[in-house]
Amino acid sequence: MLPEIGQQRVIIEGVSPEVDAGRYAIKRVIGEPVIVEADIFVDGHDALTCMLLYQRSGDKTWQTTEMEPLGNDRWRGTFCPSAMGTMLYTIQARVDHFRTWQRNLHKRIAAEQDVSVDLLIGADLVEQALQRATDAGAKGDARRLSSIVRHLRDARSPAKAVQAALNPDLLELSNRFPDLRYAVTYAKELPVTVDRERARFSAWYELFPRSTATTPDTHGTFADLEARLPYIASMGFDIVYLPPIHPIGVQFRKGKNNRVQAEPGDVGSPWAIGGAGGGHTAILPQLGTLDDFRRVVQRAKALDLEIALDIAFQCSPDHPWLKKHPDWFRQRPDGTIQYAENPPKKYQDIYPINFENDDWENLWKELRDVMLYWVKQGVKVFRVDNPHTKSFRFWEWAIAEIRAKHPDVIFLSEAFSRPRIMYNLAKLGFTQSYTYFTWRNSKYELTEYLTELTQTEVKEYFRPNFWPNTPDILHAFLQHGGLPACKIRLILAAMMTASYGMYGPVLELGIVTPREPGSEEYLDSEKYQLRYWELDQPHSLHDLIARVNQIRRTNVALQSNHNVIFHPTDNEQIICFSKHTDDHSNRIVVVASLDPINAQSGWVGLDLAALGIDSHPYHVHDLLADATYLWNANSWNYVELNPQHLPAHIFRI
Amino acid sequence: MLPEIGQQRVIIEGVSPEVDAGRYAIKRVIGEPVIVEADIFVDGHDALTCMLLYQRSGDKTWQTTEMEPLGNDRWRGTFCPSAMGTMLYTIQARVDHFRTWQRNLHKRIAAEQDVSVDLLIGADLVEQALQRATDAGAKGDARRLSSIVRHLRDARSPAKAVQAALNPDLLELSNRFPDLRYAVTYAKELPVTVDRERARFSAWYELFPRSTATTPDTHGTFADLEARLPYIASMGFDIVYLPPIHPIGVQFRKGKNNRVQAEPGDVGSPWAIGGAGGGHTAILPQLGTLDDFRRVVQRAKALDLEIALDIAFQCSPDHPWLKKHPDWFRQRPDGTIQYAENPPKKYQDIYPINFENDDWENLWKELRDVMLYWVKQGVKVFRVDNPHTKSFRFWEWAIAEIRAKHPDVIFLSEAFSRPRIMYNLAKLGFTQSYTYFTWRNSKYELTEYLTELTQTEVKEYFRPNFWPNTPDILHAFLQHGGLPACKIRLILAAMMTASYGMYGPVLELGIVTPREPGSEEYLDSEKYQLRYWELDQPHSLHDLIARVNQIRRTNVALQSNHNVIFHPTDNEQIICFSKHTDDHSNRIVVVASLDPINAQSGWVGLDLAALGIDSHPYHVHDLLADATYLWNANSWNYVELNPQHLPAHIFRI
Repeated sequence: MLPEIGQQRVIIEGVSPEVDAGRYAIKRVIGEPVIVEADIFVDGHDALTCMLLYQRSGDKTWQTTEMEPLGNDRWRGTFCPSAMGTMLYTIQARVDHFRTWQRNLHKRIAAEQDVSVDLLIGADLVEQALQRATDAGAKGDARRLSSIVRHLRDARSPAKAVQAALNPDLLELSNRFPDLRYAVTYAKELPVTVDRERARFSAWYELFPRSTATTPDTHGTFADLEARLPYIASMGFDIVYLPPIHPIGVQFRKGKNNRVQAEPGDVGSPWAIGGAGGGHTAILPQLGTLDDFRRVVQRAKALDLEIALDIAFQCSPDHPWLKKHPDWFRQRPDGTIQYAENPPKKYQDIYPINFENDDWENLWKELRDVMLYWVKQGVKVFRVDNPHTKSFRFWEWAIAEIRAKHPDVIFLSEAFSRPRIMYNLAKLGFTQSYTYFTWRNSKYELTEYLTELTQTEVKEYFRPNFWPNTPDILHAFLQHGGLPACKIRLILAAMMTASYGMYGPVLELGIVTPREPGSEEYLDSEKYQLRYWELDQPHSLHDLIARVNQIRRTNVALQSNHNVIFHPTDNEQIICFSKHTDDHSNRIVVVASLDPINAQSGWVGLDLAALGIDSHPYHVHDLLADATYLWNANSWNYVELNPQHLPAHIFRI
Repeated sequence: MLPEIGQQRVIIEGVSPEVDAGRYAIKRVIGEPVIVEADIFVDGHDALTCMLLYQRSGDKTWQTTEMEPLGNDRWRGTFCPSAMGTMLYTIQARVDHFRTWQRNLHKRIAAEQDVSVDLLIGADLVEQALQRATDAGAKGDARRLSSIVRHLRDARSPAKAVQAALNPDLLELSNRFPDLRYAVTYAKELPVTVDRERARFSAWYELFPRSTATTPDTHGTFADLEARLPYIASMGFDIVYLPPIHPIGVQFRKGKNNRVQAEPGDVGSPWAIGGAGGGHTAILPQLGTLDDFRRVVQRAKALDLEIALDIAFQCSPDHPWLKKHPDWFRQRPDGTIQYAENPPKKYQDIYPINFENDDWENLWKELRDVMLYWVKQGVKVFRVDNPHTKSFRFWEWAIAEIRAKHPDVIFLSEAFSRPRIMYNLAKLGFTQSYTYFTWRNSKYELTEYLTELTQTEVKEYFRPNFWPNTPDILHAFLQHGGLPACKIRLILAAMMTASYGMYGPVLELGIVTPREPGSEEYLDSEKYQLRYWELDQPHSLHDLIARVNQIRRTNVALQSNHNVIFHPTDNEQIICFSKHTDDHSNRIVVVASLDPINAQSGWVGLDLAALGIDSHPYHVHDLLADATYLWNANSWNYVELNPQHLPAHIFRI
């Protein structure tokens, strides 16, 4: 079939960034540049003009910026999103006959050829631009173009004509009135999800509100939590994430240490959501009232903290939805409802939602409305529990629905699943994602993993959030390494990715006893019982954490991930990596020991060119220990790290 | 916006092969498998059934084959095209509740759990399949399903019920009547261009018909060419490619050695197409008549040769189109037509077509009809001259138009241009492509380039055709290396890619004198004058070429490119690579010297595992020298190559 406009000659392909052929959005925060590249070419030798087009989704017109050739038919242009929401970008390219003509004229004149006919060709081209200069505002330009046409056609003053033709401003002037008849626009409009700064750069602190009481064996309340907030703020965190705060089921309630039978007084798991008091929009009475919760949110805000809630779309056997919407669950032939299971394991305290049910529209809306309800209470950050066990399409729809009105809402995906599933959830809209960091402990593993996350296409849509520990994951490295291991993993998490989080007070107090050997569960886990934490202890990592978070806040290089570079060391137990701003005005080099038991020493070979350091000796200032060293630019440099003291240097150069 | 079917839970992404998100077709020949892979997954723990769907474009129904899981959510399926034309493929995947149920039942029984309710769930699932078994032909299956439902529901014989439930055939039976309500079909139908075998595997011989006369200073004719065909056939070629056979322009005709002024009697360049006798569908009278040409085509066919014509869409100043369609060319303000140029260079003997003209529809049809005219004369192979200086969209349309009726037509792209342009032309439909091989002479260059062509996505659409020489390219390596260099490059071209070609008799006679030092042009090039070639000379490579082509014909491994492997040698002047069939039944190892002057020796370390060789000593038989060696499987092996004799081993293992 013949195309509509056969004169279109330009090809645009190989556009990047582009996630799954434009099916999914890339992610940026306000002010973070979108650098667009493409292969653009035409038959023959004509010159091109290539424009990057961008707009806020729904705008009537495109903003434009000219792309620059990088060589070998690759072009690049950049724009910066200025507001939250969705932006679109695409590319328009055209054969630029005026540019071709001016380029060739230079060559002809250099070769001392007769250009009299060429000047007339140029006059025609400028005259065509003049004919397109019809806007009222273009009168001045039209006068200039008209004057140039006269010069070009004036055979009596060839020198003046040539001068007019080669005027470097003429290309820009002519291109204000481009011939777009045969311009080619890339077939796809590619989306960008634009978030607020916190989506990229955030420090999370997880704690169980019910364990914040000031006396042992007492159920903590929102008032206790409120009183705890200044302590969290003093460590420099941004987000306080709370496990579910809803009524907890009574039927099949789990006992301490996940025992199948609860004993009287056992408080149950907060993730067994729903009871007599209600479901996902209700509050566990022992914690307080909705007003109490709102006060927590307000108090947090005053401390520059945000409250994050847990979205766990599953039900205890006592959840009101089981009665109200039995068709949202899978029925068994014996009349019971299907509990969660991973055969042969059974989880009878939890009922999963059946996303294949016929009433899915009402289900989806109800789930969305749960989140909107909490948004209304002032919550703008959600940590979503096991999103990979709920319908992917639901998340894509729900996140888009919520962000359409509340583009400042942040969703953290807690999917410890297979790689493609974790990446897909990020593509579908999750703002940040938990990662495999907790299980990546060797230098090789950490290097490979962080490189995959920051130096491949994954970086366009997947924002990693590194956690040294969670209530579900007490890694063997921490169990065996104790407090020094907690320090190592905290510093790695906080330095490696712009977003990180920790589960406290467990981490700062160095609580690392597993339920049983080989288990990643904590002994006497807060998931199933109240805990009382004595915070004011000499070994607490409070001050170290505060220092680390302050370093993150005062060094812009640590607030994004794209400039991570690994540097060689001669010791497999010492890892070295750096982050720097594009202009090299801020440069951080982290040298960390991976050994929580023994002191380690070795030599570090920095890639100075990548860091923008010339070949003179340079000072490195350890922001953790507040010490300065003079390093030699022409050799490797020596480091010695003692895990009992400080297992890492955080150098500013 | 809510989706239409919210119960669809499966995600299909990362499909390969897929060229530019399905915008372009992959290429295969009849019988060559299409191996399709994709990332397919679902929320939670349900089992999937994934089907590869394929059809001839335009068919009403899809053929299907089940895909196999490769692990980590990657799936694979394969089909083989059985006819020329366009095929389509896509993927359909669904949550398979029956498969999930049977898998879980195995686990429950292994854990000795009560499965009475599970058997009833299974009965429901089988009953649903039974309800879908409504086709007349499904009566037998329906009876079997019905009987199984009875067993599963029979609480009195639980052992029999379990036996029926776990029957491995039951899954296959149930899946004959799948529940497709929530099945997900991949959004794209991906195209495959299916060619005949020759598109993949071909040996080309280029010669100038006008230089085939049997006496010097005589213009060769089609009759002379006819007489030359047995000689070409005796060397084992498949395709005889002729430079343009049309009338040659008189105005601005180029003289010998590309002199600007022709002298009386100069025959001009065959690429300056068009004269008093006509244009692209006419024949130069000195060559003969259309009937003479048809005889050449017939005689070639009888010798198992095909004639390839040159499609060079440009005009001499005497071409009839200039008068009939002046609007197809660019007019200059002085009333002349714009000749070809690359400023400051001018090519006044050639007028390029202006693809931006308003009469482009008629232009496109005329150009297409030129090719269809020659198809009608029996020509099914075209070598297209400089396609990258004509509109890309034209080629895409024209090739599709011609292939719609003549899917056996082969187009070779002669675009010695930048990489993205060469690859794009292949995407647009060119069957085979010239490459940079002529300029890749070192071991590193050859290894990198062939790896790019055969081990990356490029292999899906770009079929390389390696040429040691062409009338435009006499590389310095040949100029300095003489006949031994011709041997080396011929063997490399013929062994490295399934399609290759050479420009003769120049190559077999070792004609390597350039027009001037530093030039890639031949002295007294056939492009501008008649040449008389004395073929029967003792140094002719005729016999070597015949041997090489016979080796290609008798060793299937050499007839495709995907199994190229490079093996290490300890000498930068010795290259070693292999090709093998997937089943290892045919294995060819080439060891070639890259030095045309001195003898070279060294050690070769074959990757035996890749070649499917175990750790015993093995015989290698040199098909060129007809010699056999016993090679040691546990060490490297010694080779010695003398360019004056044979610069390469072609081993069959």
